[in-house]
Amino acid sequence: MKLQARLLDIQAGGRRIAILDDETASLIGVHSSDRVKITHKDEHLIAIVNIADNFPRNYVGVYQEISTKLGIENGEIVEVQPAERPEALNYVQAKIRGERLRENEVKVIVEEVVERHLSDVEIASFVTALYIHGLSIDEIEALSKAMVETGGTLTLDKTPILDKHSIGGVPGDKTSLLVVPIIAAAGFIIPKTSSRAVTSPAGTADRVETFCPVNLTLEEIRDVVKKTNGCMVWGGALELAPADDIFIQVEYPLAIDPLLLPSIMSKKKAIGATHVVIDIPTGSGAKVKTVGSANALAYDFIDLGKRLGMNVQCAVTFGEQPIGYAIGPALEAQEALSTIMGKGPVDLQEKATSIAGILFEMVGVENGKQKAESLLKSGKAERKFRQIIEAQGGNPRIKPEDIKLGYKKAEITTDKDGRVLWVNNRSIAQVAREAGAPKEKAAGVVLKIKLGEHIEKGDVLFEIYAERNTKLNTALELAKKLQPIGLSKKPEERMLIGRVPTRVIQRKVFTLER
Amino acid sequence: MKLQARLLDIQAGGRRIAILDDETASLIGVHSSDRVKITHKDEHLIAIVNIADNFPRNYVGVYQEISTKLGIENGEIVEVQPAERPEALNYVQAKIRGERLRENEVKVIVEEVVERHLSDVEIASFVTALYIHGLSIDEIEALSKAMVETGGTLTLDKTPILDKHSIGGVPGDKTSLLVVPIIAAAGFIIPKTSSRAVTSPAGTADRVETFCPVNLTLEEIRDVVKKTNGCMVWGGALELAPADDIFIQVEYPLAIDPLLLPSIMSKKKAIGATHVVIDIPTGSGAKVKTVGSANALAYDFIDLGKRLGMNVQCAVTFGEQPIGYAIGPALEAQEALSTIMGKGPVDLQEKATSIAGILFEMVGVENGKQKAESLLKSGKAERKFRQIIEAQGGNPRIKPEDIKLGYKKAEITTDKDGRVLWVNNRSIAQVAREAGAPKEKAAGVVLKIKLGEHIEKGDVLFEIYAERNTKLNTALELAKKLQPIGLSKKPEERMLIGRVPTRVIQRKVFTLER
Repeated sequence: MKLQARLLDIQAGGRRIAILDDETASLIGVHSSDRVKITHKDEHLIAIVNIADNFPRNYVGVYQEISTKLGIENGEIVEVQPAERPEALNYVQAKIRGERLRENEVKVIVEEVVERHLSDVEIASFVTALYIHGLSIDEIEALSKAMVETGGTLTLDKTPILDKHSIGGVPGDKTSLLVVPIIAAAGFIIPKTSSRAVTSPAGTADRVETFCPVNLTLEEIRDVVKKTNGCMVWGGALELAPADDIFIQVEYPLAIDPLLLPSIMSKKKAIGATHVVIDIPTGSGAKVKTVGSANALAYDFIDLGKRLGMNVQCAVTFGEQPIGYAIGPALEAQEALSTIMGKGPVDLQEKATSIAGILFEMVGVENGKQKAESLLKSGKAERKFRQIIEAQGGNPRIKPEDIKLGYKKAEITTDKDGRVLWVNNRSIAQVAREAGAPKEKAAGVVLKIKLGEHIEKGDVLFEIYAERNTKLNTALELAKKLQPIGLSKKPEERMLIGRVPTRVIQRKVFTLER
Repeated sequence: MKLQARLLDIQAGGRRIAILDDETASLIGVHSSDRVKITHKDEHLIAIVNIADNFPRNYVGVYQEISTKLGIENGEIVEVQPAERPEALNYVQAKIRGERLRENEVKVIVEEVVERHLSDVEIASFVTALYIHGLSIDEIEALSKAMVETGGTLTLDKTPILDKHSIGGVPGDKTSLLVVPIIAAAGFIIPKTSSRAVTSPAGTADRVETFCPVNLTLEEIRDVVKKTNGCMVWGGALELAPADDIFIQVEYPLAIDPLLLPSIMSKKKAIGATHVVIDIPTGSGAKVKTVGSANALAYDFIDLGKRLGMNVQCAVTFGEQPIGYAIGPALEAQEALSTIMGKGPVDLQEKATSIAGILFEMVGVENGKQKAESLLKSGKAERKFRQIIEAQGGNPRIKPEDIKLGYKKAEITTDKDGRVLWVNNRSIAQVAREAGAPKEKAAGVVLKIKLGEHIEKGDVLFEIYAERNTKLNTALELAKKLQPIGLSKKPEERMLIGRVPTRVIQRKVFTLER
């Protein structure tokens, strides 16, 4: 059917959405959320129909994603026909029913996600079904491969290519800012791409951005790595695995992450990594609660690595409290800089040199951890760090005190003596976010104590930094409510950790197909 | 934060969506799919944020749902603040984890769905989780009650109020068009609301629309029922259970229907029904495959009815083939009219009088089926039917031959002798839809044979009606591909019904919280 195009002068977040009024949709024979094929000159694409009651008849409204792609001008005539139901939807439904998907079925889903043939509703349902039913290792492999194939790749002419990744969940983890320069200082290639924070107070890309631009193109990354052996860039705009970015958008409001393994490993494969260490922070307040489940996950990473042609080892690390003391982009950048200059917290140094050490040993260097420690102590890692910052366009002479911190500050003190029994990672992260992190770079939290330390009445437990008074106040209120740090003279004095109202996991009851 | 409002001159399908550019969103401290509170003068509402890259800074784009509700003019200044995460999202997540929800939690979800505080992604995930984990009868009750409480209701001053509903799945089921006038002719009240087809070739509202308008207000329904004891209207615009309408929108592309029981029963409760018969068509090609599972479902309906204060009985009916011969709105309307005039297919008459008979007996009439049959034979039901049509604004003197049918017609013949072994409901429905039903009212399928009948080579199995040649041709192709009717001399000559490629239901593997 020929319809007049009405351009909506706005984007739809990458979605390809066509607006029709009810009558026009009826004539074409489509319902809201069905697909249409829109043809303009020799180009066409598939769009998802939204019905708008008072939209004019015989018009099709298109967002910029469609008008740009097809080169449609306002008022031009386009052909709009009903399109077949995407093949991927069959496999999404199979997954909802709990079936295991085959490689080619997974590939079709990923391709159609990237092509924007599937709606948010369908992707959300797929991700939820994956979360509830779980994924087989074959499905994980197929997803990873399809995600690499549908995205961009980085090609460097040297091997080995080293990389590290943390599955996250522990606040203040600025380890990558140390591992990259240590590895690069030893002459190995480490083209590190990182994400920005989505639900946490800071991602590695947010931290590095305090020093230099992180939004580099693949070309620019190649240049930086050629000059310095390493880089610390934001992976988000590189389209390394665009399907993953779309899945993450949908996962964010649901706070579920069933695609953890393919999400991480597809990006490692896309940058050509040959040797990868995956950091699995473990502890009751981390994503992985026990060493047993950390090991199970580690074997999945190692197995998946083998299937994708990568040498993978995992580091199970202590995740019961934040790494170092600082949480928030600028605060963490400052702490990382101090540490690479030799004056940082022990746990951060220890973690970074351990992980760098594993990487060294994977590529044949003996006594990897000692090697990492000596690169840190000798100042070689620091020089490399400044070289990478400079290559990415930052100031290589930056000092910790140059970094601007939130100028509003509040202190949380204790009203009794005691020993620190626990630090609630999630609550600390929430307080830092409430203070404005990661969007307000200078906001965050600085711990004044760590697990096991003795503290006296009136001592400061942690400080909150914010850029604005309103944020400081709401963060302070939240901190008082959450009480993220638990104190007691002896552990046995405080046996009741919390009360959980009874909930029953339900049995499956009769459901109908439709 | 004060932002200038830019009105998007278009609806967002009921959703409350606010557009921000990335920088403005950062300043407010929200991410795509977070919520903001928009305040204009003394009014405010919660909207879901969409980020559009090239949207101007310091503007907020609002669809008509928001501008109308808050009375915002283009260019006016509004206050946009981050809003708290909806409470309902906690319970959606609990359901994703497989927990059982409490009554007040269900209520919060339903309220926030109706208030449009939840996005399509979140609703899709909720519905998928309900489908996979199933619902307890307590959850079903809570959902039903919350859906009634958040919607409109019909109040009539007489009791008892009778009603019937089919769970659907069998094409050509025009039973309601007979049951309503039979019951009303006996002096009982039956204010029947029905849906339009979504995935089927015709819904009751589509069929009735051949005779008269079905889009009545609650006031108009009250008048029609006062005059005639009954009505046959579309329930879709009555907002009887608006949450259900939103759930159905999300369920449609996924083709799942976990809310079947609350969806049906909330609408019966909302019109004040006291005595309800639920028709459960049963058979291998119906939604319910076996009498055993039909009984299980029936007990859920009866139990739920009791919990909602309604007297419910269920009719388990033969669902192995379409009801009558005609499939498609106009074709079915014609067949229903012929039947109420005494010249229709036996199965349709038998089904309608059985269901009307159960209703009669539920309100104390003895020999209900005989009573229904005599009302049909005497012409009283026909007179009542015409009276209702007239009260709803249609032509009471309509004859079957007045109904316009698709003027393009094709016949599917058989190339061998045999007996009809099976009729595939789903394939027949697909062919009718491909021919244009339900949007093209005159399109559809007319069966020429029914189960068990003998047929000779060259005889017609079914006819396809369409309004357009293109539709006729694609329907014809689909019919040839699907072969919806199976013939054989004896059943044992055709033992292989189909081949199913092996699929394995997978075991749960390790998944992570986030």
